[in-house]
Amino acid sequence: MPRYRLLIEYDGSPFSGWQTQPGQPTVQEHLEAALSTFLRTPTPLVGSGRTDAGVHARGQVAHFDADEPVDLYKLTRALRGLTPDAIAVRAVEQSPDDFHARYDGRRRTYHYHASTEPRALGRASRLHLTTAPDFGAMNRAAQTLVGEHHFGSFCRTQSETENRVCTLFQCAWEPEARVGDWRLVVSGSRFLHGMVRAITGTLLQIGSGQRPADDLTRILAEQDRRAAGPAAPAHGLVLHHVGYDDAMVPGWDLT
Amino acid sequence: MPRYRLLIEYDGSPFSGWQTQPGQPTVQEHLEAALSTFLRTPTPLVGSGRTDAGVHARGQVAHFDADEPVDLYKLTRALRGLTPDAIAVRAVEQSPDDFHARYDGRRRTYHYHASTEPRALGRASRLHLTTAPDFGAMNRAAQTLVGEHHFGSFCRTQSETENRVCTLFQCAWEPEARVGDWRLVVSGSRFLHGMVRAITGTLLQIGSGQRPADDLTRILAEQDRRAAGPAAPAHGLVLHHVGYDDAMVPGWDLT
Repeated sequence: MPRYRLLIEYDGSPFSGWQTQPGQPTVQEHLEAALSTFLRTPTPLVGSGRTDAGVHARGQVAHFDADEPVDLYKLTRALRGLTPDAIAVRAVEQSPDDFHARYDGRRRTYHYHASTEPRALGRASRLHLTTAPDFGAMNRAAQTLVGEHHFGSFCRTQSETENRVCTLFQCAWEPEARVGDWRLVVSGSRFLHGMVRAITGTLLQIGSGQRPADDLTRILAEQDRRAAGPAAPAHGLVLHHVGYDDAMVPGWDLT
Repeated sequence: MPRYRLLIEYDGSPFSGWQTQPGQPTVQEHLEAALSTFLRTPTPLVGSGRTDAGVHARGQVAHFDADEPVDLYKLTRALRGLTPDAIAVRAVEQSPDDFHARYDGRRRTYHYHASTEPRALGRASRLHLTTAPDFGAMNRAAQTLVGEHHFGSFCRTQSETENRVCTLFQCAWEPEARVGDWRLVVSGSRFLHGMVRAITGTLLQIGSGQRPADDLTRILAEQDRRAAGPAAPAHGLVLHHVGYDDAMVPGWDLT
């Protein structure tokens, strides 16, 4: 049973998130339907992780097994032709037989896009900040989150995940090419449900002076979602990249 | 009568172009309606030029006159609040009384966005090229267009504009930040109806080998729209910038 993996970009706006849910349009469901049509057999797809309703991806990774070797050119064309325009299959390749999109992911990187200027182009994936926050203050505060911590205060209360210890490698706002555009780059070993949006919403409160700059130490210690700020809106968030130990085709997963 | 000018970004997708047309949604109509509501009197707006249905702008400029001085902060808020999200008023300022958005424009710059990779995010303003063209060949050929020429072969046949001599300052594809993304930067003194899209479509034929690399000299000489290639689709085109001799607030019109 050869195994294959996909690199997928999607505009999350029209979907109820990545994961298949009965009666809801999801990215996974569209891709599984296209795969199953092409392979003529029901084919489950395993993603690197879920994304919430309205959250986008530039570098989602998923794997599936086929009964026999597949023509990669035809498969790529079929997946592109059988899915909506809001889903773009960027690359398809054969993976090691034991590759697992979720368990083998070593580093996940999210970008939260915001702008202090009103934007018409690209507004579907960028939060408009009507008042410019203090990005320097946010970045100094965000250093508190880098490293291994219990992120219970940044995890949705309904989440069933028991282990709430994660390691953040990076958490910092960077200016983008257009003056006024910024992205919060959050990179870590794993993420809890709603974690990046809760971090973003809390940092924005610090950046606007609604919350003291040194509040993150207390928030982490509380291990209670109510200690942190509100979740930032879904439409600014993009799953940018998932890093694995191997990359068969050099650069295949680079953006 | 103080005069004011606006710097405007818009997503052209939902509009039948810039210019007011009876029974059609246009950018000019939405802005004039908002201005007239705020100023409580019918207020015409003069743009730097028209853009076609589906064409976007990052730096459209327009001016209007008010009977008396206007509170710029309130006006900006009102224009942002009274127009659809697909229109973003980036800046408003008082201009010299004799400033004219159209006649004073010295340099117009368009960007035509394309990608050799499938994209889900940003697909509303980027053409997907399923086969990568030869960008080097297109750029060598495009040099033929730079300078003062009769651009009759790149002007819509229905256009009533008599003077078809324009000066191009720049015409070249540049790679953008994401691998696979490119923009054709076309900058000139003035542009004829459909000119940038006709140039783009013709260059893409050269880049894909459908048309000889040295064909542009012959096309210019023909002064006949049928000599050039098809218009590239509207959704890839953005009016990026209009340059004037003055810029009252330094950097106000920079992107």
